Amino acid sequence: MPKPKPPKAAEEPKPVLRLGLPAGSLQEATLDLFAKAGWSFTVDRRSYYPRGDDPEIEPVLIRAQEMSRYVEAGALDAGLTGQDWIMENGSEVRAVADLVYAKQRRSPVRWVIAVPESSDIQSVKDLEGKRIATELVEGTRKFLARHGVKAEVEFSWGATEVKAPRLVDAIVDITETGSSLRANKLRIVDTVVESHTQLIANRSAWQDGWKRAKISSLALMLQGALLAKEKVGLKLNVQKQDLERVIKLLPALKQPTVSPLAGSGWFAVETIIDESVARELIPGLKAAGAQGIIEYPLNKVIP
Amino acid sequence: MPKPKPPKAAEEPKPVLRLGLPAGSLQEATLDLFAKAGWSFTVDRRSYYPRGDDPEIEPVLIRAQEMSRYVEAGALDAGLTGQDWIMENGSEVRAVADLVYAKQRRSPVRWVIAVPESSDIQSVKDLEGKRIATELVEGTRKFLARHGVKAEVEFSWGATEVKAPRLVDAIVDITETGSSLRANKLRIVDTVVESHTQLIANRSAWQDGWKRAKISSLALMLQGALLAKEKVGLKLNVQKQDLERVIKLLPALKQPTVSPLAGSGWFAVETIIDESVARELIPGLKAAGAQGIIEYPLNKVIP
Amino acid sequence: MPKPKPPKAAEEPKPVLRLGLPAGSLQEATLDLFAKAGWSFTVDRRSYYPRGDDPEIEPVLIRAQEMSRYVEAGALDAGLTGQDWIMENGSEVRAVADLVYAKQRRSPVRWVIAVPESSDIQSVKDLEGKRIATELVEGTRKFLARHGVKAEVEFSWGATEVKAPRLVDAIVDITETGSSLRANKLRIVDTVVESHTQLIANRSAWQDGWKRAKISSLALMLQGALLAKEKVGLKLNVQKQDLERVIKLLPALKQPTVSPLAGSGWFAVETIIDESVARELIPGLKAAGAQGIIEYPLNKVIP
Amino acid sequence: MPKPKPPKAAEEPKPVLRLGLPAGSLQEATLDLFAKAGWSFTVDRRSYYPRGDDPEIEPVLIRAQEMSRYVEAGALDAGLTGQDWIMENGSEVRAVADLVYAKQRRSPVRWVIAVPESSDIQSVKDLEGKRIATELVEGTRKFLARHGVKAEVEFSWGATEVKAPRLVDAIVDITETGSSLRANKLRIVDTVVESHTQLIANRSAWQDGWKRAKISSLALMLQGALLAKEKVGLKLNVQKQDLERVIKLLPALKQPTVSPLAGSGWFAVETIIDESVARELIPGLKAAGAQGIIEYPLNKVIP
Amino acid sequence: MPKPKPPKAAEEPKPVLRLGLPAGSLQEATLDLFAKAGWSFTVDRRSYYPRGDDPEIEPVLIRAQEMSRYVEAGALDAGLTGQDWIMENGSEVRAVADLVYAKQRRSPVRWVIAVPESSDIQSVKDLEGKRIATELVEGTRKFLARHGVKAEVEFSWGATEVKAPRLVDAIVDITETGSSLRANKLRIVDTVVESHTQLIANRSAWQDGWKRAKISSLALMLQGALLAKEKVGLKLNVQKQDLERVIKLLPALKQPTVSPLAGSGWFAVETIIDESVARELIPGLKAAGAQGIIEYPLNKVIP
Amino acid sequence: MPKPKPPKAAEEPKPVLRLGLPAGSLQEATLDLFAKAGWSFTVDRRSYYPRGDDPEIEPVLIRAQEMSRYVEAGALDAGLTGQDWIMENGSEVRAVADLVYAKQRRSPVRWVIAVPESSDIQSVKDLEGKRIATELVEGTRKFLARHGVKAEVEFSWGATEVKAPRLVDAIVDITETGSSLRANKLRIVDTVVESHTQLIANRSAWQDGWKRAKISSLALMLQGALLAKEKVGLKLNVQKQDLERVIKLLPALKQPTVSPLAGSGWFAVETIIDESVARELIPGLKAAGAQGIIEYPLNKVIP
Repeated sequence: MPKPKPPKAAEEPKPVLRLGLPAGSLQEATLDLFAKAGWSFTVDRRSYYPRGDDPEIEPVLIRAQEMSRYVEAGALDAGLTGQDWIMENGSEVRAVADLVYAKQRRSPVRWVIAVPESSDIQSVKDLEGKRIATELVEGTRKFLARHGVKAEVEFSWGATEVKAPRLVDAIVDITETGSSLRANKLRIVDTVVESHTQLIANRSAWQDGWKRAKISSLALMLQGALLAKEKVGLKLNVQKQDLERVIKLLPALKQPTVSPLAGSGWFAVETIIDESVARELIPGLKAAGAQGIIEYPLNKVIP
Repeated sequence: MPKPKPPKAAEEPKPVLRLGLPAGSLQEATLDLFAKAGWSFTVDRRSYYPRGDDPEIEPVLIRAQEMSRYVEAGALDAGLTGQDWIMENGSEVRAVADLVYAKQRRSPVRWVIAVPESSDIQSVKDLEGKRIATELVEGTRKFLARHGVKAEVEFSWGATEVKAPRLVDAIVDITETGSSLRANKLRIVDTVVESHTQLIANRSAWQDGWKRAKISSLALMLQGALLAKEKVGLKLNVQKQDLERVIKLLPALKQPTVSPLAGSGWFAVETIIDESVARELIPGLKAAGAQGIIEYPLNKVIP
Repeated sequence: MPKPKPPKAAEEPKPVLRLGLPAGSLQEATLDLFAKAGWSFTVDRRSYYPRGDDPEIEPVLIRAQEMSRYVEAGALDAGLTGQDWIMENGSEVRAVADLVYAKQRRSPVRWVIAVPESSDIQSVKDLEGKRIATELVEGTRKFLARHGVKAEVEFSWGATEVKAPRLVDAIVDITETGSSLRANKLRIVDTVVESHTQLIANRSAWQDGWKRAKISSLALMLQGALLAKEKVGLKLNVQKQDLERVIKLLPALKQPTVSPLAGSGWFAVETIIDESVARELIPGLKAAGAQGIIEYPLNKVIP
Repeated sequence: MPKPKPPKAAEEPKPVLRLGLPAGSLQEATLDLFAKAGWSFTVDRRSYYPRGDDPEIEPVLIRAQEMSRYVEAGALDAGLTGQDWIMENGSEVRAVADLVYAKQRRSPVRWVIAVPESSDIQSVKDLEGKRIATELVEGTRKFLARHGVKAEVEFSWGATEVKAPRLVDAIVDITETGSSLRANKLRIVDTVVESHTQLIANRSAWQDGWKRAKISSLALMLQGALLAKEKVGLKLNVQKQDLERVIKLLPALKQPTVSPLAGSGWFAVETIIDESVARELIPGLKAAGAQGIIEYPLNKVIP
Repeated sequence: MPKPKPPKAAEEPKPVLRLGLPAGSLQEATLDLFAKAGWSFTVDRRSYYPRGDDPEIEPVLIRAQEMSRYVEAGALDAGLTGQDWIMENGSEVRAVADLVYAKQRRSPVRWVIAVPESSDIQSVKDLEGKRIATELVEGTRKFLARHGVKAEVEFSWGATEVKAPRLVDAIVDITETGSSLRANKLRIVDTVVESHTQLIANRSAWQDGWKRAKISSLALMLQGALLAKEKVGLKLNVQKQDLERVIKLLPALKQPTVSPLAGSGWFAVETIIDESVARELIPGLKAAGAQGIIEYPLNKVIP
Repeated sequence: MPKPKPPKAAEEPKPVLRLGLPAGSLQEATLDLFAKAGWSFTVDRRSYYPRGDDPEIEPVLIRAQEMSRYVEAGALDAGLTGQDWIMENGSEVRAVADLVYAKQRRSPVRWVIAVPESSDIQSVKDLEGKRIATELVEGTRKFLARHGVKAEVEFSWGATEVKAPRLVDAIVDITETGSSLRANKLRIVDTVVESHTQLIANRSAWQDGWKRAKISSLALMLQGALLAKEKVGLKLNVQKQDLERVIKLLPALKQPTVSPLAGSGWFAVETIIDESVARELIPGLKAAGAQGIIEYPLNKVIP
């Protein structure tokens, strides 16, 4: 007699997180960040569906501009994109974590109104009745509405920064250092919105226990990898009489570990510091009596 | 006594034609075509305002998608773009000449509705209530309206061909050979629109005598250069008894020039043929008695 | 009277190890691995004799396919190549160490019989009388002989995966992920052999004390470098009451070092873990009470 | 009684010529040559089945080394490869046309025996008992047999020219200018075989009327395109008294066309010359009284 | 009494012309020009001694800056370089021909004095006592001396255009369009010297009959190739009644060839025109009744 | 009572260090070194004024050849360049630190006199009356003067190593491995000067307290980063009975840290070693009883 089939439970499909990764300019930095965080994705030429080493994640490369739309609609459980585009799309999603990466994006991105250096336009009010080209059409319209200004805002397919004054009166474009605007002889009039990258989740997915845990692990590890890029490990030896002076110099963010070196009057000190202060700190430590100072790199820092 | 200064007329500013050239995928082919037609434009890295060798033309590189908008508004006098984008923008402009270039675009471009090979969707009617991603949002909406179908059409920022079925039910995308669709396991359901490149003019500019003449010269020379890419010059020698047979083989599009070779019973025949038929024609000519056949390249052909 | 010549001993030439490195697709990964292990080789363009920083090693770049032949013949003392090619050449050499490197080769390489998806061939038996193209001619012939099948096996000079069905009935080719086979619409019928990279030695060289020691050092350091690519260092702090819980989560492969932090009730825990488990482990450690978790990279791990 | 022919005739499949094109180092030059001859093939990245503009030709990219094997077996109707590899494979095929192309291959390719500059080997005889590495194993064995020499000939997977003297005593390798041999401090001992590219056909295919005509057209047009690369058109004007002197200077290969310029005492002379002699010829023609000399390029020359 | 000729005559070595070609920025354009003129030179990577197809020429690649020095000293018989560097070196050489090539150098090169836009320096006089960086040290010193100005002129090893005002007060640098100067916010104060490329000869070599003839042939063919880049061939048909009108439109530089088309009332007209006027001329010709206008490219034009 | 505001001091402009970085072949290695030391500079395409992350440093990219001139003149406060060029320019500057970087420059650079292999010139004396090409004109002249030799020394604009014997009798050029000289069949006759990279300071700047401290910090951190490239961290465990043996094997440069592992009879040993000895040392340590050996990378080592 044949055995009865076991209950379906054992055959339940393994849960999978559909994750959107930003294609294009942020793609390489994003994949690097995930690799540092512990997830490796391989992108075949022309494919938008990377292969990863975690069977619980199904990654898709999508333009940041439309990411939130697909997360909101549930085609994706989670994704990385900018706050600007979440607002532009008016998407209802759960913001899980802020992620500030790609060196030149340590500070948030800014969308600014820019006009030719020689333009008469000095403030938002002067845009009344003008023609504005931008990729951020909705954001710009809302900003103008808040200021009670009526202007023609049209979608720009690219090279926005060269359009004023020949084709339009003003533009709304992204800027980091302002150097591209200067190179095109444009002057900033006002800031429309500031933005940085976020890990977002679909609202239903966030209610699902397994998915929320998975997304939270992603957030924790991504932030740990980002933090590690800014930190370094530091070890040094110091004699008893200099110990206090050296300790005082160390940033207070974390108690350093101090261990006596057996029978020698020396102490080993170990701590984590911001890489950016090392160039100021280390000469001071040496002057204060520290010796055998070594700095070493970190992969992840979880406070 | 000094002569009175002549009236200002002589100092009138030289007229200039503001000409839009398509930036991006068609850019290189377009600049090559203009070079063949007799206008050389040099593009500095990152600049969208090429330098040219004709002071009467002020060129601007603009995405084909927005070209007609700026020609309609008069920011440009003329431009090259596709019929598809003229329709998408609903622009009122003057179509001056059809220009079919870039080898793989000898035949017009097609925008098609495509669905996953395994989809149930078999015709336009089946799109009712579905979600469609496309760059050609207005064109798609009009097409659906003509068929009485209601569907959600959303703008796709790129990589449209990989979105079905994971993110949308169908896409409307451009296709030439269909190989990209096949590679993404998509099936064509219907054609939304066909299109090719046009030289268009602003309506007021077309009423201006100087501008119309300038645009017409551009059209003539561009078409002459395009035609020359398809044609070759052919010379051959043939004896009297074979002359008629050889002449008959030659395409009828233009009367060949036949000159007797002094005192020899031989004739020199010269004509212009389509390059595409040369591989069929030449073996036949040789079999019919032609000798010393030479084929040479052409720069321009103005019928 | 001339002095008698001193005994040769003082003038003995310094011993040298002639080492074959695989040219071609594995070359870069191999040189990276040696650099990590402590040997730096510089390859001049077009030269197959790299310059190294160890005067005791004379490196030669040779294709993996013929490496074992030259090691067997004694032209080389040792070399790196695949088991597949050692077998193909039927070379009598000493296998010293298995080396699994180049990320996509973590798992062994497989040579498989593949046929067109629509082919009637379902098993080895169906290959009787067929035509098979492969780079691994001898290996394929032995495999068929073991199954009592007679087929025409011919050497393929390249692009083997596109030859079926137009030029041959089946192929035997290398596969890692199977994606190239799928892209060419081929179906795997059977596995001919699995293989990974080995450090091999000439049998006489292995009997020579100095050479054996040198080859063994190479093996130790190469394996130490490979192991380090999979491992990371981990440090964390934890309070007494959470210590046991945290320790239990750590993989058992090596006893972690636990040191009390002076007069604080906290303990510093340090260990080595597999990088691949970090993304699972670290969120758990944090949940269990660990703080100040840092992960750092390793150069070498010698268990 | 014979069965009546089925009405299918009208639906007979269009005949197709399966044509092998050499993949690898000759690929680009070959595709250029076909384009000049009138056939355009587009190669997708990684595909070995180009798309062409002639539905009667089905092209396949195959390594020159194995081309003749597949033409002989009938998997291909025709192909381009070197005589050396036809001989190496011992293939029974029909040689249709010699094609000498790729500038540095105007003269045939030579396979030579080369030894280290300091080697004792001076002639074929000295190879007795030696070890020889080569890609042309069969050709080398036959050559040695003809000279009654026994030696170990082994297949070289690449970089043959760096193998002597460290790995083998001599090599047999291809050479054009000898510069690669000199750079590796090798000396040529003898020539094993000379070779150039041929268009070959399968013997049955050559018996098929349609296929033979198609292959013959290919041969005619390919040779016409090759000849045109070496020729240029020349036009000049000359006065009656200098005419004879100028005509005498022109190469005799083809009678120049001489036409009187109406009522002027001048004659227009037109001819085809070898490009390689132009630099000698033109200064002479000018010295002899020729004026308005113009040289123009040719696409094809069919004598 | 003259010495009897030595019997050596028959064995005299073949004469050879040692020719210097400019390495660096002009190299590719120069080799292209020679190829068009009929001499093909192949440059191996890293070699400065190209291989050519004319055994009578021994080419050497040398920086334009030092060319005239080696031609003057007789290490080279002839060479191509700029007038600026001939003057800078004060070399006594024979100028054989002016060669204006590389599109952006149709007009001569200019060395200008440039200062920061905001500098007080307005004329040469204001340079008194200032510091000037330049590659053209001697030329600058002579220029200043002619104007009675004393200033410190120092050799600049590169990036001259970025040195003012931080490192020096003014620079003397080469300019074509002035765009690099503008990009560095520099203002032109004066022109030091204008220059173009010349073919120069060593004075003794020029006295040698064979060498002078060889150098003259080079000059003739190089100029013929340069001229051909600016010219095109033109053919058209025209009816008798329009003939005169069409002929009048054609540039007068060369009498067009007019031949009646047998028994048709049509005439074939053939001529050579400047490519730069084609875009103006052809629309006019068509308007005047010309038909079947074809334009074809030229390799060489020797007036 | 509020403190009175301090005098102007608070409004003094922030001091800035003008720092010269070597453009060209050393540029990338230099920027990498600064990044490791803690200063990040971003170089825009074509700009010679990098943007840095330290507002106290104003960096300029200048060719190493002219660096010392601008440091001496005070246009720069400090810079990195070679001793050879400091001497060539005869610049009076303060040498602050030796910096040996770019792997192939671990050993100092050598300027050597080289002649064709077949030349009669055997020593400096044989250069009397000869012609020598070099970039190091002054250094060569001084060297010859010290040896009482008169020769013509001329500036070479590039490709010096190919000039002998065709253009000059000897050259003075830089060499590291001598391979470029050998490739050009040159023989070294003598060494003119040896050199390595130095951090130099303007003499007045060195007297300024703030600038000297800033330059000293740079020196300390750059040297710390350089040292770290040669060092690695090492940790191992060893049993009590093997401890002494293991410790003895460790290099004496720094006392290792030894900590008992609680209640286990094992000790943890931690130290810093030269990376170059690891491949010798680690096999020995393992043989001596060490276990769990791990090697990890360092960012900076300040002894």
